[in-house]
Amino acid sequence: MSIEQDVQAAALRAREASHELAVATRATKDAALLAMADALVAEAPQVLKANADDVARAEAGGTPPNIIDRLRLSEERIADMADGLRMVAGLADPVGEVVRGSTLANGLELRQVRVPFGVVGMIYEARPNVTADAAGICLKSGNAVLLRGSGSAASSNAAIVEVLRDAVAGAGLPADAIQLVSAESHDSVKALMQARGLVDVLIPRGGAGLINAVVTESIVPVIETGIGICHVYVDAAADLDKALAIVLNSKTHRTSVCNSAESLLVHEAIADDFLPTVIEALQGAGVTIHGDDRFQEYDGVTAATDDDYGTEYLALEISARVVGDLEDAIGHIRRYSSGHTDAIVTEDQRAARRFAAAVDSAAVMVNASTRFTDGGEFGFGAEIGISTQKLHARGPMGLPEMTSTKYVVTGDGHIR
Amino acid sequence: MSIEQDVQAAALRAREASHELAVATRATKDAALLAMADALVAEAPQVLKANADDVARAEAGGTPPNIIDRLRLSEERIADMADGLRMVAGLADPVGEVVRGSTLANGLELRQVRVPFGVVGMIYEARPNVTADAAGICLKSGNAVLLRGSGSAASSNAAIVEVLRDAVAGAGLPADAIQLVSAESHDSVKALMQARGLVDVLIPRGGAGLINAVVTESIVPVIETGIGICHVYVDAAADLDKALAIVLNSKTHRTSVCNSAESLLVHEAIADDFLPTVIEALQGAGVTIHGDDRFQEYDGVTAATDDDYGTEYLALEISARVVGDLEDAIGHIRRYSSGHTDAIVTEDQRAARRFAAAVDSAAVMVNASTRFTDGGEFGFGAEIGISTQKLHARGPMGLPEMTSTKYVVTGDGHIR
Repeated sequence: MSIEQDVQAAALRAREASHELAVATRATKDAALLAMADALVAEAPQVLKANADDVARAEAGGTPPNIIDRLRLSEERIADMADGLRMVAGLADPVGEVVRGSTLANGLELRQVRVPFGVVGMIYEARPNVTADAAGICLKSGNAVLLRGSGSAASSNAAIVEVLRDAVAGAGLPADAIQLVSAESHDSVKALMQARGLVDVLIPRGGAGLINAVVTESIVPVIETGIGICHVYVDAAADLDKALAIVLNSKTHRTSVCNSAESLLVHEAIADDFLPTVIEALQGAGVTIHGDDRFQEYDGVTAATDDDYGTEYLALEISARVVGDLEDAIGHIRRYSSGHTDAIVTEDQRAARRFAAAVDSAAVMVNASTRFTDGGEFGFGAEIGISTQKLHARGPMGLPEMTSTKYVVTGDGHIR
Repeated sequence: MSIEQDVQAAALRAREASHELAVATRATKDAALLAMADALVAEAPQVLKANADDVARAEAGGTPPNIIDRLRLSEERIADMADGLRMVAGLADPVGEVVRGSTLANGLELRQVRVPFGVVGMIYEARPNVTADAAGICLKSGNAVLLRGSGSAASSNAAIVEVLRDAVAGAGLPADAIQLVSAESHDSVKALMQARGLVDVLIPRGGAGLINAVVTESIVPVIETGIGICHVYVDAAADLDKALAIVLNSKTHRTSVCNSAESLLVHEAIADDFLPTVIEALQGAGVTIHGDDRFQEYDGVTAATDDDYGTEYLALEISARVVGDLEDAIGHIRRYSSGHTDAIVTEDQRAARRFAAAVDSAAVMVNASTRFTDGGEFGFGAEIGISTQKLHARGPMGLPEMTSTKYVVTGDGHIR
C-alpha cells in the first residue's frame, strides 16, 4: 500500500474507533488515561531504547546539540509524560456539557451539547512528549487521533504509541483511537490534508513553514496555531518599573516560545526616561536590539528594517520603535502583530480600555507579561496548542476547545 | 483594475471599516439598522426598478418561472427585509459578552470576551433579500461584510447595497462596512477565496456545487452551510400517529430547504403496520418513494439505488428502507447523512438516548420534525445559515456564531 492508502486506512479505523470513544463514559476514559500513564513508566526501558536509536541517528546526521537535547528522553521526562496523562484524567470531561438549553414556546426542549470532533489529525515537529500529550487530550475529549510526528523522532513515537495503544485496549477502549502515521515522507501530511470527511480537524504544531503549508493546502478544516509576533507597548502613563520588568520577562524568560515578545513600542513622552534603562537592561540580558532612529541614538542598537518588525526571532533579539501616541502603537500592532499576544503597560484606565478594545489579538495583556498566554497559566490544566485564528478556538486550547457541539431537540410528536 | 484587484481593494476598505465597527456601541449599531430599514422602505421604488431589470433579463434568458419568482421583489418583500433589519436591531449585542472569566491564583484577571471576526465574505446564490439579511446580521455582530451575490440579481443587489450604505453612513458608521463585490465572473469568488489575512471567514450559501467548491478551494477559513440529507427513523417503539405526522411534515412541509427529510428508515418490527399507512400518505401528498425490497412490495414504490440514499432531492421524493434494529438505523445514518438533522420517533427512552448519543449530526430530533432545525424556530431571532461543519459553529448560526473571542488579561506588573 502507498502511504496515502495507509493514511486513509488508518483514518477509517480511527473513525470506527471514534464512534465508541464518543459515547465512552468519563470513568472509562480516565481509567484508560491512568493505564496509559502507568504503562509509559513500566515500559520506559523500551521507550528509552527506541529513543536512543533516534538520538544516534540524529548525531550521525550532524543534528545540532540543542535539537538533540529536545529529542532526547530520560526516565524523568517519561515520568513527566505520565504525570501529564494523570493530570488530564483529573480534568472535567468536556463531552456532554450542556452549553445552552431552553424550552421553546411550543414545548420543544432544546439542548446544545458538547460532542467530540471525531477524528483529529495532529501534525507536529516537536519533541516526542507531544505524542503522549496529544494522545491524552484527544482521548479525554472523546476524539480518535492520527499522530504525524517528525521523522527524527520516529522510533520514539512508535514506541510510545505502541505502549499507549496497549494500555487503551487493556482499559476496554479501541486501540485505534491512537494511531501513528508514517513520518517517512511528506506524502502522509498530504494524505491527511486531503482526508476530508475522514478527518474532522487538522492541528499543525511547529514552525511557520509547516503551519502555513497546512493552512493553505489542506481541504480538511485546520486550527492554526502558534506563530507569535508579540508586542509590548509602554504607554506614556506606564509605571516604568513595572514596564521594565514586563519587557524583560516577555523577551527573556524563554525565547523559543510563541508567547515571548518580539517587539517593543515606547510612547515618546517617556522615551528619554525609559530608553536608557530598558536598553541597558535588555543588552545586559544579552538581547540584540533592532531599533528605529530614536533607539539607535544609544550604543549597540542596530537599525531595524521593515522586515524586523514582522520577524518572529524566537531568540535574544527584539525590534523596537518609539511611537507618537497610543493610536500609533495600535496602528503599528495592527500592521505587524501575528494576532497572538500583545501587551500594554499603563496606569491610565482609558488607555488600557482603548488598547484592549482596539487590538485584535487572541490575548491582550494589561500590565502583565506576554508569557502568560498559556493553557497552564490560564488554569486549563492541559493545552494542545495556542490558536491564532478566529474561527472555533482562539488562544490556548484546552479540552473544551477540542470539541464541537450538537443540538438535541426533544418533542412529543411536534411538527411545524 | 482587474476583478481580483477590485476585491482586494474592497477587502482593505472593509478591514479599515471593521476597526471602527468593532468598537461601535450597540446604540450606534441599532440606530444604523433602523436607518437601513427605513431607507429600504423609502427607496423601495428605486430598488423595485433595479429588480425589474434583473427580472426582465432573466425572462429574456429563459429562466424558469419558479426561479424568477424567487428573484422578483415587491413592496411587501421589501417591507419584510426592513422588518428583518428592525428585528436584528432588537436582539442583544453579542460583542463584549464575557464568555468566561476568573481571577487566577496570582491575581491576574482573565476574561474571554466576544469580538467580531472582522471581515466576513458572503457568497450566495439566493434571493436578493439575503443581501439585506446578511448585511444586518454582520453589522450587528460588528463585522464588515463583502457580499458576492448571484449575477442574476446584480442590479437588485447593487440598489439594495447603495441604499444600505447611505443609511449606515448617515448613522455615523463607515459605509464600507457593507460592500457588494462584482458578480460578473467567477474571478471575484476566487479573489475572496485567496484573500487570506484580509477576509476572516467565508460563508457560502447555495447549492452543493458552490459550497463544495468554496470548501475545497478557499485558503480563507470557511463555514460550510446547508447541505441536508436528513433522515427520519421510525423505531419499533414509535407512536405511529406521531411518526406519520413527523414523516409527512419533515418531507412535505417545504421541500426546497435543507432541513426537509430525504430518507425514511422504519424498524422491521413495525414495518407491516406502518408501511401501508406511510406509503399511502406520502403518495397521497405527491411524494415519489424510492424504496428497498420491503417498500417495493407496495404499489408505486420504485427501487432505491445506493445513490438514492445519498441524494438531497429537495423535491417531493424520498428514499426509504426497512432496518433490522436501532443499530442498523444508526449505521445507515452514519453512512449517508450529511450531518445536518436526523430524527428518531420512539416512545422508548433507551432508544431515544442511544440515538441522540450515537448520531453525530448538527441536530438530532427526538419525536419532532426535521424542519425545526432553524434559527427562527430555535429562538435565535436571526440566522445567517446552518453550519454542517464541526469547527466553530454547528447548526443554525445566529449573532453569537458570527463572533470570535479574545482574552483580556489584566495584571499589575505581573511577570512569570
